[in-house]
Amino acid sequence: MTPAQADLIHVLRPVLGVGGVVTEPADIEPWLTDWRCRFRGAAPALIAPDTREGVQAVVQAAAERHVPLVPQGGNTSMVGGATPPEDGSALILSTRRLNRLRSLDAGGGLAVAEAGVILTDLHTAALLAGRRFPLTLGARGSATIGGLVSTNAGGTQVLRFGTMRGLVAGVEAVLPDGTIHDGLAPLKKDNRGYDIGQLLIGAEGTLGIVTAATLRLVPAIAERAVAWAGVTSPHQGLALLRSLQAATDSIESFEIMPAETLSAALAHLPGARSPLAGEHRWHLLIEAVSTDPAAVSPSVLLQGLLGTALDDGQIEDAVIAQSEAQAEAFWRLRDSLSDAERATGPAVQHDIAVPVDAMPDFMIEAARHVEARFPGTRASGFGHLGDGNIHFHVRAPAGAERQAWQAAEGPPISRYVHDLVVAAGGTISAEHGIGQMKRDELARVSPPGRIAALRAIKQAFDPDWLFNPGKLVALAPVRPRS
Amino acid sequence: MTPAQADLIHVLRPVLGVGGVVTEPADIEPWLTDWRCRFRGAAPALIAPDTREGVQAVVQAAAERHVPLVPQGGNTSMVGGATPPEDGSALILSTRRLNRLRSLDAGGGLAVAEAGVILTDLHTAALLAGRRFPLTLGARGSATIGGLVSTNAGGTQVLRFGTMRGLVAGVEAVLPDGTIHDGLAPLKKDNRGYDIGQLLIGAEGTLGIVTAATLRLVPAIAERAVAWAGVTSPHQGLALLRSLQAATDSIESFEIMPAETLSAALAHLPGARSPLAGEHRWHLLIEAVSTDPAAVSPSVLLQGLLGTALDDGQIEDAVIAQSEAQAEAFWRLRDSLSDAERATGPAVQHDIAVPVDAMPDFMIEAARHVEARFPGTRASGFGHLGDGNIHFHVRAPAGAERQAWQAAEGPPISRYVHDLVVAAGGTISAEHGIGQMKRDELARVSPPGRIAALRAIKQAFDPDWLFNPGKLVALAPVRPRS
Repeated sequence: MTPAQADLIHVLRPVLGVGGVVTEPADIEPWLTDWRCRFRGAAPALIAPDTREGVQAVVQAAAERHVPLVPQGGNTSMVGGATPPEDGSALILSTRRLNRLRSLDAGGGLAVAEAGVILTDLHTAALLAGRRFPLTLGARGSATIGGLVSTNAGGTQVLRFGTMRGLVAGVEAVLPDGTIHDGLAPLKKDNRGYDIGQLLIGAEGTLGIVTAATLRLVPAIAERAVAWAGVTSPHQGLALLRSLQAATDSIESFEIMPAETLSAALAHLPGARSPLAGEHRWHLLIEAVSTDPAAVSPSVLLQGLLGTALDDGQIEDAVIAQSEAQAEAFWRLRDSLSDAERATGPAVQHDIAVPVDAMPDFMIEAARHVEARFPGTRASGFGHLGDGNIHFHVRAPAGAERQAWQAAEGPPISRYVHDLVVAAGGTISAEHGIGQMKRDELARVSPPGRIAALRAIKQAFDPDWLFNPGKLVALAPVRPRS
Repeated sequence: MTPAQADLIHVLRPVLGVGGVVTEPADIEPWLTDWRCRFRGAAPALIAPDTREGVQAVVQAAAERHVPLVPQGGNTSMVGGATPPEDGSALILSTRRLNRLRSLDAGGGLAVAEAGVILTDLHTAALLAGRRFPLTLGARGSATIGGLVSTNAGGTQVLRFGTMRGLVAGVEAVLPDGTIHDGLAPLKKDNRGYDIGQLLIGAEGTLGIVTAATLRLVPAIAERAVAWAGVTSPHQGLALLRSLQAATDSIESFEIMPAETLSAALAHLPGARSPLAGEHRWHLLIEAVSTDPAAVSPSVLLQGLLGTALDDGQIEDAVIAQSEAQAEAFWRLRDSLSDAERATGPAVQHDIAVPVDAMPDFMIEAARHVEARFPGTRASGFGHLGDGNIHFHVRAPAGAERQAWQAAEGPPISRYVHDLVVAAGGTISAEHGIGQMKRDELARVSPPGRIAALRAIKQAFDPDWLFNPGKLVALAPVRPRS
């Protein structure tokens, strides 16, 4: 521990009270590693203020002593975005105790949640008030609002309501100079210059510590229908989505997976059965939702639309879950794909997006190119076809040793995949963010002017690079700009 | 003309060709004054490139010579945002020749329009393709896409589809260092760090010259219904809006005006008649739209809902336009309110917003406070009740001389109104932007940390303050930040 860190901890103890400053190594330990155990850091203390003024006090005291802070919510980052540096130079600033739901206005469809509110708790609160917060994802039992805002999180229900950016009506944050940015007022029109709230969404805690957000709620679900369909190609899948969307605005999820990925999940999940009896090269999971009990049942709607698609040869087969339990079983298959693939052997994963219309070609072509370029590998993508976002996995040749293969082949494979994505007009991070994992790849594939702009923004907000150092953009002098 | 300006013009002539460099004073003259004739500037030349590479060449050549540029589209700014400085130090960079519709994908609901495309031309192109670009406003025959993006424009149809920010799927711009930021690919998920496109929306050309935008199109209108209702208060108006929105998602406009404002419009418009026979203290204009010819007619829908509201005593009277001509007549009344008020005598106008639920109280209380504080004045607001955005006008006492009264009373009245807005959690610019008109007021009413952040962003992108100098934030050293 440096003298500056020791002094900071000493100063903060009386300000933050019991539970506000954690220095016991065993209590810090769980927060030093990301949940996928890819990154490991060190920190002499975990600071956990429970008010925004507490966060402000921490930021000011840390700035005076030039001690970096790593903001952390549920520690569910997929890219090492909340793991402190290895050298122990930073303290962890946990938002977990900043966990009040400040307000929930069911009529106006708005909730103000502090950064540490866990996603499932917001789901529950909205439900009890007769509304819904539609964004959801696998880590919902741990992920916090502050982290979700800071990574502009996505998930499985983006199709209809968008990513976190589309659901945030206002942001409150503490900026590196100690300013509290209070942007919580839900103004439908506000043209007071640069939108600082929009800048903080997806900034991964590098420009400000998000302390609360005003979030949009949508009408509660009256009924949902979950269907499974088999198709010959992603092209057929996308064509089906387009015809469903032309007929109804109730489609909330549209997920795709290849046969072999489904097989891995079926082998992985005890007692799981394929929803369809026959063999199909590609599988679709479709969810439609109604919010008005008087409206046409989404089950009847999907039945009709999928029936027509079947008659027209647009799909090979389809089934609609006949009970909530069956619907859950369909989703469990989808949610287990990542774990199942991991269980089958080493693989390199990529969270990528291209324009939706370009995705079917990309899925076929990219897999073909990767397998040709890296003989013995098997490449395929699954995920959010309706968002143009898939998780593109490249599996090791049979018999490869996990650690050695990933260390040797992982980086060149990822670079190759990312180059294909960029060539298709896409992004190397669709919903997981950049963190430390993709930072150098982002710099490699981006035009220099873009990286210069990101660095200049970082430098403008945080000239001493004290907020989440080493994430998103590398510490480096700003390129001279004139 | 300075030697640097002369040299710049000399260098750009061969690059931009005929029409690209305008130096004839008579040809520049119309672009030196804003359309409301509140601001007047000077410029030795108007530069009009017709490609993004042309814009890039202009930006690079101007940066080398330290010559400021004032971007201008349709010159319809309400806040002097596109008027060059009085000292003639800047050149006008007109985007009017950058006016191609690069693509229109009716199926995907996306269009890529260059900055100089005029809003009505985009409306027409979308209509011919069976789609609709929903944002509209009074200046639609002159306002350009680049200006609409750069001011995050609003208008009368924001209720359902949001402001320009909600309709922009991607931005292309030339940054002050000459970088072309190509953000046009319509990625539904993209987490590559700070969202530069979001930063450029509403930046008023101070951070980059928007050269094109990817815009969302929505389904074409199948049928619209326009209704007029009389109520006793804005509170009744908002309660009606909430019950309409609970029953249908087809409400696209919900405008309010007080009786005296309507009377001024009726006196101003030759042959105009009040839509309702009786007297009402407040009037509402409501538009509902269907996009599916098979859906319930919005006219039938409004008839039923307004009938119920009438029976319940929620409104005093209502009428639905019986023809498209009558619907247009209703809208003409609404669109003439500003001109009509101007014709009745001097007034100070404010484009302000507060949270929607706070607006009814604000409308009553703010008017009362202003009239008490400035005896003899008459204060009232009209406009977009559903967006929490009204145009709040304070009219001079009878007999006041326009110029003298506005010069003496305008600034203190505006400061007083803005203080009331800030106290209500609102914004002093809802949809018009800041420009030069509200720049110093923004600095006065904002927390210093917010202005420091705006200046730091400006400084980061444009260290020599060459892009639209004097707009939005004043040229000043960035506050030391640690």
